[in-house]
Amino acid sequence: MDQGGKKRSVINGTEKDPWIVKVSPQMATPSLQDNRGDVDRLLDGLRKALAGDEVAIDFKMAKRIPSTLREHGYEVQAVLYKGAYSWHLVALFPAAFDTPIYGLAVDLGTSTVVIRVLDLTTGEIKDERSFLNPQVEVGQDILARIHFASKEKGLAKLQRSLAEKLNEDITQLAQRNNIRTVSFVGMSVSGNTVMTHLFLGLDPFWLCREPYIPAINRPELIKANELGVAVNPESPVMVMPNVGSYFGGDLISGILASRMTHQAEISILVDVGTNAEVVLGNREWLMGCAGAAGPALEGGVAQMGMMAGPGVIDKVTIDPATGEFRMRTIENRPPVGICGSGLIDLVAQLFLAGMIDLRGKYVESRCGKRLKEVDGVNHFVLVFPQDSATGSDLTLSQPDIDALIRSKAAMYTILTTITRMINVSLRDIRNFYIAGTFGSYIDPKSAITLGMLPDLALETYKPLGNTSLAGATETLLSATAREEIYKIRDRVTYIELNVNQEFMNLFSAAKFIPHTDRSLFPSVKEWSRI
Amino acid sequence: MDQGGKKRSVINGTEKDPWIVKVSPQMATPSLQDNRGDVDRLLDGLRKALAGDEVAIDFKMAKRIPSTLREHGYEVQAVLYKGAYSWHLVALFPAAFDTPIYGLAVDLGTSTVVIRVLDLTTGEIKDERSFLNPQVEVGQDILARIHFASKEKGLAKLQRSLAEKLNEDITQLAQRNNIRTVSFVGMSVSGNTVMTHLFLGLDPFWLCREPYIPAINRPELIKANELGVAVNPESPVMVMPNVGSYFGGDLISGILASRMTHQAEISILVDVGTNAEVVLGNREWLMGCAGAAGPALEGGVAQMGMMAGPGVIDKVTIDPATGEFRMRTIENRPPVGICGSGLIDLVAQLFLAGMIDLRGKYVESRCGKRLKEVDGVNHFVLVFPQDSATGSDLTLSQPDIDALIRSKAAMYTILTTITRMINVSLRDIRNFYIAGTFGSYIDPKSAITLGMLPDLALETYKPLGNTSLAGATETLLSATAREEIYKIRDRVTYIELNVNQEFMNLFSAAKFIPHTDRSLFPSVKEWSRI
Repeated sequence: MDQGGKKRSVINGTEKDPWIVKVSPQMATPSLQDNRGDVDRLLDGLRKALAGDEVAIDFKMAKRIPSTLREHGYEVQAVLYKGAYSWHLVALFPAAFDTPIYGLAVDLGTSTVVIRVLDLTTGEIKDERSFLNPQVEVGQDILARIHFASKEKGLAKLQRSLAEKLNEDITQLAQRNNIRTVSFVGMSVSGNTVMTHLFLGLDPFWLCREPYIPAINRPELIKANELGVAVNPESPVMVMPNVGSYFGGDLISGILASRMTHQAEISILVDVGTNAEVVLGNREWLMGCAGAAGPALEGGVAQMGMMAGPGVIDKVTIDPATGEFRMRTIENRPPVGICGSGLIDLVAQLFLAGMIDLRGKYVESRCGKRLKEVDGVNHFVLVFPQDSATGSDLTLSQPDIDALIRSKAAMYTILTTITRMINVSLRDIRNFYIAGTFGSYIDPKSAITLGMLPDLALETYKPLGNTSLAGATETLLSATAREEIYKIRDRVTYIELNVNQEFMNLFSAAKFIPHTDRSLFPSVKEWSRI
Repeated sequence: MDQGGKKRSVINGTEKDPWIVKVSPQMATPSLQDNRGDVDRLLDGLRKALAGDEVAIDFKMAKRIPSTLREHGYEVQAVLYKGAYSWHLVALFPAAFDTPIYGLAVDLGTSTVVIRVLDLTTGEIKDERSFLNPQVEVGQDILARIHFASKEKGLAKLQRSLAEKLNEDITQLAQRNNIRTVSFVGMSVSGNTVMTHLFLGLDPFWLCREPYIPAINRPELIKANELGVAVNPESPVMVMPNVGSYFGGDLISGILASRMTHQAEISILVDVGTNAEVVLGNREWLMGCAGAAGPALEGGVAQMGMMAGPGVIDKVTIDPATGEFRMRTIENRPPVGICGSGLIDLVAQLFLAGMIDLRGKYVESRCGKRLKEVDGVNHFVLVFPQDSATGSDLTLSQPDIDALIRSKAAMYTILTTITRMINVSLRDIRNFYIAGTFGSYIDPKSAITLGMLPDLALETYKPLGNTSLAGATETLLSATAREEIYKIRDRVTYIELNVNQEFMNLFSAAKFIPHTDRSLFPSVKEWSRI
């Protein structure tokens, strides 16, 4: 599942401001008049090449420097990264080769891991590759992995399985791009708090136990050799900091990529997965919360639900006049199932066509022959057996819709709650950023129709794609972005969502399509009329 | 050969200014209201305890912190050292124990290694121990060791033999002082350039080959675990920087200990060993040179010469009236030989008694029965067989004296040359510091009598003992001293002593007792009269 540069647009055209650089230090060869030590000589050359900045060399590297310098006649290129206080030497290459340098930006998802290869000199995306997080073998969800980590050698196994798969893919990326792995000289990793703990080999035990304490929220740069990643062993690895157990580096990365902290107007960033993670703010303030929205939104619950892939239905329309169904499948293959965005489309269209009522219940008179009863439960047939790739029909049951309605109600309640807590109206939101691959495909009109998203002007909704990866990419390429990541982390006020009586009242009111208070969704009234 | 605190006087009473400290960070226990990560919580506590200074924690340590904090209920004491830009965590101990912290100051001599145990909180010297550098097995002198290092695995063998012996002695020091080795949390090492290269495992190959390039002159702080030293693995090891191949960290250490860089008046520091290392300067300028003075000065050449030890003659006087010899031996044991300072005394006394002439040749008429000829060579019998511990007589041959005169002439020539090069008269020197164990025992009057040292007021001569160890001690205890070490290193102008015609002329003139130009030594004329 390679996506080679598809999402390039989210990388903003910031000024070049790299923190991993290659320089050519000028060194006089040793003489009686200039008998500085080899390492001291190199350091002097590096400082000069870096406009007087200080440079540190790890002792293990320093030991090899005299022979390297002498082997190449004191003509070398040096790769360095900027640490908190000084530059640090990563590698020396013979000047004759002019070795290009590359970095890897990694989105460490609970399900999917994406590796992106960047040319650190030009900032160009060279390649990209994604794979299923091998840790899903011990558990699909985060709690299962925390549980596994507490078993004998469990943590080490989880860390190793990920590192091995990462290294396998890094090696393949290197081969197909003709890159030597020592030329990978930097890495940035963005993931939620549990994923980064497991990547770093930190015990996640306390993350899911009150009061939910991470081992580390703000890791410093770590050498690749301490993590067993198959890049240049001295490479810095930047792991995005977390705000807490439930607000991870992937979101910090997303906030960076959205640029919401640069704007005077209020923006909201929503990352919809198993959790609905919501960030609200502008250049002055930043609030975040995370709440269970339910996997229905990811297409993980409906019987025919599945992740995006060939043959998966991602768009549904029903002709309001004829009741005719039009479906789009990925790569135009015969349908095999439906993904989250397709599901939202489908249910919204069913509602607009009057086939479900405002409680989300099937209206038998409108559904006609597409409705069938299995074991006393209504199933709506979206694709008949003869049209499906599986040979069976693809159906949406009443419980599938009920689950989706609970999820959308949770989402809307979270949005209402967080904005109320800080006295902002949903109408004040100028940019509504939707993060995540799933989010990119949601049709805002369908989501508004269901009352999952508020009834804002459609142009307010801006899908950003994989913002975790976009933020990791920017962070690896720019020192300013790297500093901003820490500033963002320190600025986020995390709000604990209390599921109290008020929340439950709001939730109940949101369990209708679009809402019990239809005045909140004037557009839906209009769309229903057509 | 333990010297338990004998040399304590050279540690000047500087203000307490430690760079290795133990603090008790105050941490609130985790709660829903305060859910900072464990490492972040500790860092906040440490910053507060260090008046807001920044703190860095190595990733390997960070991984163990959550379990350590929880084990001790967040009540810990932390040991930290001040790096170039921030403090670094070395160890966490349970607060309940209030573990004392210790450091080791090491003088890494070519022949003798001295380890001193310091209480890092009080600055007190707890113990001291010295041993023969095990590398003497492959070669007494530095060149032999450089040669050995270039053999297959030679460098690793040299490094290991030293580390093993060091660790053996560190363990013994720990045991006899009831100290756990993890409580040794810092180390400073002072040695010449070859010794520090071998300690660090740096190839010394180029040190003795033109243009004499060290691998590193200015090592940064190194973790003990990178050097295989049996102290707390995270301890910082401060290795004194070198000026060049022939001007090592032991001298920088000595300059620090002498305080010559704090004074307006001109001082000279002389460390006499195989090389005569000379530093001249004040708080404004600093010049250094090193030249071969000959091992005779160390008691290494005369047939009966030996290093200081029980039964070794270290003081000789001849009654000018009776010609009677009075000798002092170490521990008052029957004589076994003579050490360097004793030899200088003896030859000076022989001269004042008229038993040798101004060329250093025996005057038969004055020596009487004490002179005997063996194989055509004059030998002066200092101790007759019946009085010696060996059963044989102890004698000083004419060639022994000739060697001593060459050595003393070299020393005087170096002193004359370096002062002339910078237009300073020897008479302008207000403090003449003599470094080294050997130097401590030299009687300046005898050295002046021979014309080895210039004819300055006797109170000008100040023996400082082991300044390499004293400087290492100060450096380990004080951040200011540590900074000063680098400043001194950067300030020293190393002068290459060219053995040209002028030097040879001066040398020839100095090969008389005290000198061909007797007006340079008015005191000797006076002393001869008595």
